[in-house]
Amino acid sequence: MAVLLQFDFPFPGPFGEEMTQALDGLAHSIAAEPGFLWKIWTENAAEQMAGGIYLFDTAESAAAYAQKHSERLAGFGITGIRAKTFAINEGLSKITRAPGC
Amino acid sequence: MAVLLQFDFPFPGPFGEEMTQALDGLAHSIAAEPGFLWKIWTENAAEQMAGGIYLFDTAESAAAYAQKHSERLAGFGITGIRAKTFAINEGLSKITRAPGC
Repeated sequence: MAVLLQFDFPFPGPFGEEMTQALDGLAHSIAAEPGFLWKIWTENAAEQMAGGIYLFDTAESAAAYAQKHSERLAGFGITGIRAKTFAINEGLSKITRAPGC
Repeated sequence: MAVLLQFDFPFPGPFGEEMTQALDGLAHSIAAEPGFLWKIWTENAAEQMAGGIYLFDTAESAAAYAQKHSERLAGFGITGIRAKTFAINEGLSKITRAPGC
């Protein structure tokens, strides 16, 4: 069953179009991760935060990616990383028109 | 521009199919909120957590819902509620096949 992985962390930028340019290569790399289905990239310039909402095909692939990505972010000097995994309640999500589940 | 709202909180259950049954009415109510676009319902029985990933059409509609839902959860006796709003980086999200953005 697919697993939702929720990441957020303090982030000094860049945000917006500059973020898109800076992380284009990383995005293509993430798109090729084992078990990866999709990621929504999140950012909040006012609160200096960023993160992502991911779907993976199994708990194992989500856990492997969470460890890899946490280590990569730490390598960028980022601290305060929060990573949580969840199952999706499909019945309720259908009622609320959830995409991609 | 659409705003992603990320909610999570300690939750004692019910989970899974029982959660679907118990919260069916709430889900239909949420689907009719002003500015609401979609919600993915998240749950983690092992860690006793639940939450949701929402998309709203404006920051104002997301903020109004976040306040209403936080008060509702508090009314259920839930504490430790975490609600964060983010913009979506659309360029990066397209590369990673994000749905519904």
